[in-house]
Amino acid sequence: MITKQISAYGTDSPEANLKPLTIQRREVTPTDVEIDILYCGVCHSDLHFARNDWGMTQYPVVPGHEIVGKVTQIGTEVSKYKVGDIVAVGCLVDSCRSCNNCKNDLEQYCPEWVGTYGGFDKHLNTPTHGGYAETIVVDEAYVLRVPDNLDLAGIAPVLCAGITTWSPLRHWKVDKDSKVAIVGLGGLGHMAIKLAHALGAHVSLFSRSTNKIEDAKQLGADQVIISTDTAQMEQAMGQFDIIIDTVPYAHDLNPYINTLSTNGTLVVVGYLGPLDPMLVTVPMIMGRKAVAGSLIGGIAETQELLDFCGEHNITSDIEIINMQNINTAYERMLKSDVKYRFVIDMNSLKG
Amino acid sequence: MITKQISAYGTDSPEANLKPLTIQRREVTPTDVEIDILYCGVCHSDLHFARNDWGMTQYPVVPGHEIVGKVTQIGTEVSKYKVGDIVAVGCLVDSCRSCNNCKNDLEQYCPEWVGTYGGFDKHLNTPTHGGYAETIVVDEAYVLRVPDNLDLAGIAPVLCAGITTWSPLRHWKVDKDSKVAIVGLGGLGHMAIKLAHALGAHVSLFSRSTNKIEDAKQLGADQVIISTDTAQMEQAMGQFDIIIDTVPYAHDLNPYINTLSTNGTLVVVGYLGPLDPMLVTVPMIMGRKAVAGSLIGGIAETQELLDFCGEHNITSDIEIINMQNINTAYERMLKSDVKYRFVIDMNSLKG
Repeated sequence: MITKQISAYGTDSPEANLKPLTIQRREVTPTDVEIDILYCGVCHSDLHFARNDWGMTQYPVVPGHEIVGKVTQIGTEVSKYKVGDIVAVGCLVDSCRSCNNCKNDLEQYCPEWVGTYGGFDKHLNTPTHGGYAETIVVDEAYVLRVPDNLDLAGIAPVLCAGITTWSPLRHWKVDKDSKVAIVGLGGLGHMAIKLAHALGAHVSLFSRSTNKIEDAKQLGADQVIISTDTAQMEQAMGQFDIIIDTVPYAHDLNPYINTLSTNGTLVVVGYLGPLDPMLVTVPMIMGRKAVAGSLIGGIAETQELLDFCGEHNITSDIEIINMQNINTAYERMLKSDVKYRFVIDMNSLKG
Repeated sequence: MITKQISAYGTDSPEANLKPLTIQRREVTPTDVEIDILYCGVCHSDLHFARNDWGMTQYPVVPGHEIVGKVTQIGTEVSKYKVGDIVAVGCLVDSCRSCNNCKNDLEQYCPEWVGTYGGFDKHLNTPTHGGYAETIVVDEAYVLRVPDNLDLAGIAPVLCAGITTWSPLRHWKVDKDSKVAIVGLGGLGHMAIKLAHALGAHVSLFSRSTNKIEDAKQLGADQVIISTDTAQMEQAMGQFDIIIDTVPYAHDLNPYINTLSTNGTLVVVGYLGPLDPMLVTVPMIMGRKAVAGSLIGGIAETQELLDFCGEHNITSDIEIINMQNINTAYERMLKSDVKYRFVIDMNSLKG
C-alpha cells in the first residue's frame, strides 16, 4: 500500500503533552476520499484517549473526530463526492457493513466499527489516526456532506457533541409535544438544548447554579431548574418524557428519575462507569421509567443531523484555537472553561 | 354508609401470625359489585405488607389481591356484571379516573390509585381490606371478567403474578420474532415463561442451577442458561430483546445487560430497592440498552390478559391451601418452596 507522510499533532505517551508528529496516510483506494482538514473539534474523548484514561490507547495517538474539510482527491469508484466538496468525518470511519446493526444504519453499535482514531486501519495494518492532522483518507461511505450555509468551524462539533445528543432525541421520538430536560451544560449539553429546541420541544436545563440561566435561555432552553433547590426539584416531578444526561462523571441519577413522566427515559450519554450512588428501582417501577445509554449515531443519522443543522442554521458555539495551543485547551477543558467547544483551525498546523 | 360484618384473615401487628378477624365491607353503592370470594392467590407482597416490611402498613391488615369470585349483588347502575357472574379483582380497586395515566388505561401509575388492601376506602374512610375474606365490594370499573373455560383457582395468580409480567411483554411489543429471557422461576417467572411462549417468542430462563431445566421447559422455555456458567453467559451475549427480571432481592444486573441485543431492555418487576452492585453504564451506552421498571398493569390490560389466558388455556401452576394454613404457607414461600403459587380456597374460611 502506497502511503503519504503528513504533519499531525499527537503524543507518544500518556504523560507527555501533544506535539508535532509525522504520520502515514494511505493513498486513496478506489472508494476513498482524501480530505484536506480545515477544522477539527476538541472532544473530551480526545484527552481521555491521549492520556490512556480508558486503558486502550496505542501510541503514538493522533486524536480528533470532529473533522470538517475539503475533498482533494477521490478514488476511481467514488460517486458521492468530487474534488472541492466540503465534507465531514465523525467518530467512525468503517464498520463490518454486514451485521444487523450495520444493516439498520446503526454502525456505531457494530462490534467491528473502526474509530476515527485508535481504531484499526485494515489497509495500513496500523491504528487509525484522527483529525489533528493536515489530511485524512476515508471511505466515501463514512464521509458526510456539509450544508453550504453553515460556518465550517462551528459545524465541526456537530460530528460528535451534536450527534451524541441528536441520536437519543430522535430514537425517543422527540417532537413539539415533548418535554425534554438536559443535565450538564458543556459541549454536549449546549448542542442538546439547541437541537431539542429546534425540534420544537419544551426544553429544560438542570443546573447546580443560577449562573447558567441566561446562557441556557439564549441557547433555547425554556427554563432552568436548579437541581440543588428542593422546591424546584419537587415542582419538576413527573414532568419529562426524556432526560439527556451529558455529565461526564459519576453522579446521582435518582433525583432526575423522579422528574420523568410515566414511560420516561433518562439517557446517559456522557459517563462511562458504575452508577454511584446506586439507582433505586422504586420510582422506576412506579412509573415504568427507564435508564438507558446511547452512543454517538450512525452515518445516515449523522447526515440527517447535518442537513437539519443546515435547515435550522444550527452550529456549535465555539472558541477557535491554533493547533499549537491544544495542551492549554485540554487544561481549560478539564475546568469546563470553554463556551462550549474548542475547534482547531488546521491552517495553524500547515502554516 | 351502611356496612356488613364479614369474616376475614389478617393481623394486628407486624410480629403476629395471621388470624381470623371480623371486618366491615360497605353495602353496594350504585356502581358497586359484591363478590363472594372463591379463591385468593398468595403474593409476596401480602407477606411484606402483613409484616410491615415497607413501613407503610396500617393495622389491622387483610392481605390478598389475586381474587376470583362470584357476583352476589350489584348496585343500581351496574351494567357490566350480573349476579352469578364469575369475576376477578386484582391489585387495585380505584383510581382518580381523570389524570393522564387513568385516561391512558394506566391506572397503576395514577398517583391516587387505591390498592386492594392498604389503600384508602373513600366510602368507609378506612384502609381497604383485601381478598383473605368472605366477600369484597368493588366498583364495577375495577372488576374483571373471567373466561369460563379456566380453572378458577389457577386463574387467581394471573391477577398479580400474571399481569406484572404481561404488561412489560406487551409494552415492549413481544411477538413471535422476539427473543425473551426471564430471570427467576417463581410465581412471576413461571407466568412470564408461559405468557412469552404463548405470544410466540423464543423464551430463555436464566437460572443459577441445572435443577430447574426440566420444569422451565415444561412451562414453555426454549432453553435454560445457567447464569453461573461463564461459557453459557458469553454465548448468550447480545441475544435478547427483553429480559424480565422477577428476582425479589438485590442482585447483579450487569451480566444480564451484556446479554441484551442493541436497543434491548431489562425490566425489573420484582425488586424494590437500590441496584447493588451498581449498574455500569458502558455496555448500556455501547448498545443503546436500557434498564426499566414496570408495575402490575392497568384494568384494560388485565382484562386483555384474562381473555388471552382464556384463548390459550393458560393458568398458574398452583398449590391450594386452606385459609388456616396461611402462616405455614408464608414460611414456605420465603423458602421458595412452592410450585409456583399458593392459592387459598376461601370455602375454608366460610366452613
